[in-house]
Parts: sequence; C-alpha cells; structure tokens
Amino acid sequence: MTKARSYKLLCPIARALDRIGDRWTLLILRDLHAGPARFSELQRGLTGIAANLLTERLAKLADDGLIEKQDAGHGTTVYELTDLGRQTGNVIFELAMFGGQFKPEVPTIRPGNLRTVATTLGAAAKRVPTDDLSFRAELRVDGEAIDLQVENGTINARYSASANPDLIFTTGYEALLAMSEGEMEPNVFLRDHADLDVKTPGKEAEFLMLMTRVTDLLTG
Amino acid sequence: MTKARSYKLLCPIARALDRIGDRWTLLILRDLHAGPARFSELQRGLTGIAANLLTERLAKLADDGLIEKQDAGHGTTVYELTDLGRQTGNVIFELAMFGGQFKPEVPTIRPGNLRTVATTLGAAAKRVPTDDLSFRAELRVDGEAIDLQVENGTINARYSASANPDLIFTTGYEALLAMSEGEMEPNVFLRDHADLDVKTPGKEAEFLMLMTRVTDLLTG
Repeated sequence: MTKARSYKLLCPIARALDRIGDRWTLLILRDLHAGPARFSELQRGLTGIAANLLTERLAKLADDGLIEKQDAGHGTTVYELTDLGRQTGNVIFELAMFGGQFKPEVPTIRPGNLRTVATTLGAAAKRVPTDDLSFRAELRVDGEAIDLQVENGTINARYSASANPDLIFTTGYEALLAMSEGEMEPNVFLRDHADLDVKTPGKEAEFLMLMTRVTDLLTG
Repeated sequence: MTKARSYKLLCPIARALDRIGDRWTLLILRDLHAGPARFSELQRGLTGIAANLLTERLAKLADDGLIEKQDAGHGTTVYELTDLGRQTGNVIFELAMFGGQFKPEVPTIRPGNLRTVATTLGAAAKRVPTDDLSFRAELRVDGEAIDLQVENGTINARYSASANPDLIFTTGYEALLAMSEGEMEPNVFLRDHADLDVKTPGKEAEFLMLMTRVTDLLTG
C-alpha cells in the first residue's frame, strides 16, 4: 500500500488512486461521509472486513491526511473526515451514480448500519433540484436514524438523529428494499409501510418531492 | 475478483466498486478514455503491470460489459470502451480533480504513452468554460500526438493524430513537466520550449485560453 510508485506527468488520476484506489478504503470513506464513526461501527458496517485490515486502512487514511481521530467524550474515539477527506465526496458521488444502474446480483442482506443510505441519499440529492425545498427530516429505519437537512439548495444527510426535525419518516428495511427494487409501488409503500409524523405543517410535500426526485434519479 | 458479494440496500457505491474498485482497472479505464488501444499499448502505458494481470483485468472489464474488442484492421485487435464503459468518465474525472492537488512524491518518469495526458486534459477541460471556444488542435509531445477538439461547449481529447487541425502545438516531455510542476514560467515554456504552428489564423488565442484555464484549474 505505502511503497513509492512511479508517477506520470500530469497524472493526478494515479496520484488519487495511491490514496483512495482501494475498495475497502472507498467503502470506509463512504461510511464516514455519513458522519464520524467509531471503529466498531465501521467494522459492523463493512461486512467481511478483518479488524487488522480496517486498522491498516484507517492508518493509511490518517497518514494521508484524509481522516483524523477525535475524542467523542465518554472515553470514546471516533474517526472523521478532514477537509481533505471531504473532497473525496465527488468521487463517492460519481461511484454512486455509476453503480446505481446495476441491480443487486445476489440476495440483499440487512446492512450492519444505514450509513450507506445516508451517503447515497446525500450524493443523489446533490444531482436533483432542491432550490424550492427547505426542511429537516429524520428518517428512521428499523430504529436507526438519518438526519436530512435541505436548505438554500444544499443538502446534508448524516447518520444521526435530527434536532427539531420538521418531520419524522419511519419505515422498515424490508419494505424500503422492496420499494427501491421496484417490487412495491411507492404509493403502497407510503400507505402501508411508512409513517410520516409531521411536526411542521406542509413540509411533508417538500420531503416527498425530494424523495421522488432522488428515487427517479437512482432508478431511472 | 469475481466471487459473489453481499450487497447492501441502496448501495450503488458497492456495486460500482465491484466493477471498477480496483487500481489497475481504473488505470486501464483511464487509458481507454483517451481512445482504443492495443494490448501492447496498454501494457507499455501501465508501468509495472504483469501481462497475466492485464489479461485478467481486461477479461473482467469485458465480462462486465465495460469494454469490448474491436478488429482494427491489419490483423490487429484493440480494446475500446462500450457505452457503459464511457459512463465511468465522471468517476475518472473526479479522481483527476482530487488527485490534481497532490505533488508527485517521487521523481517523475517518462510515461510509456501520453494517454494519461489526453484523459486528464479532457477531464479537466470539462470543468472550465469552453462555450467561447471552437478549434481542433494537435498536441505533439516527443513525437506522440493528442487530438483535441473543442466545439459547442463540448471537448474531446484523444490519443491520436488530428485530421486537419487548426493548429499544431509541439513540445517536449521534460519542458511540459517542468511547467506543469511550477518550475518553469508558462511564458518561458511557450517562448523557448514550444512551437505553435497555426493553420487557421486566430485559433492560437482560443487554444491558449483553454490551456490557461485548464492549467489554472489543475494547479490552483
């Protein structure tokens, strides 16, 4: 991983790949784009990664200045993206756009966490118009939460509870999966498998507009 | 490479990485974005890749529908991107943008080919305004050529000679390197180390405007 390579003239692509050209590294970055995470959270979300491999990738990312450790209080340490690390957002975003056209080839399993949903949602939402939207929503999926903030044409999706959300959208993983795979109509999903708790009247329309645009983008 | 993986709900990022989440694969795609290439050309450009590894990566890319073999006449076969493969352009582009901020950490060596320059140039040029530009230029670097076409706000850079270029820009690898690394002033580079053969009067100004914008983007 860390041995010197030969660089090519004007080859920023190779220089990028020396830092983030590794599958696990990109998956770690994906999860951290959803917000800071503890080692155990990352390990649980990255199904199949060995602890020593995760340790090695995190050390390389820290060496390269893409992530840093932070004291999260109560004796816990979290990893989070640095400013440089956040600049990988566009790469992650384009990977999501490219991969969105492929169907899962094997049975989908319950993820260890929903960080991937937060990152993908945030990435996809950057490609749809949001100038007409302004709200804060909490998405709860089987007890886990994503904090979704939309304002002034910018969007932020984090794996976290929301402070004072305009609405709380609650659903289950199986139903969300069936809907996203086209096996359940969105209106059936909304009617029978989702609950919308509106705290600020009128915001549910804006929320559903965003979800419709994102779903169209990811499935279209 | 090809064993089934567990997919996550809404994780197009992981699905993308199963296809292009490998350093050599991304470098092969980088080179093919500059135009079709023979096996031997790819091998020469990808310093350090073993023939069997290149064979394996090409087979995987073909299996996934990202590249295909084409008969290039005279008994030669070339690999080229499919429509699906061309959709990786945005990922390559964002890698170039992310990597552009890092300086080479080891002495730069002469690349086996200049495809990387064509791909990076094409990627970078997509981020600068070109609506005011319309020209076709051939860039010759130590005898290799890049065909650069700009029209109607779109740009196409290929590792190839140009048909009827408006201008031919000739330089050498060492000087281009020194200029791109900030060790030589652009005006000194243009005066002493480059030759501009203008076929269509006035087009040199448009060409230099594009090069200035791209250089500013990559170094700024």
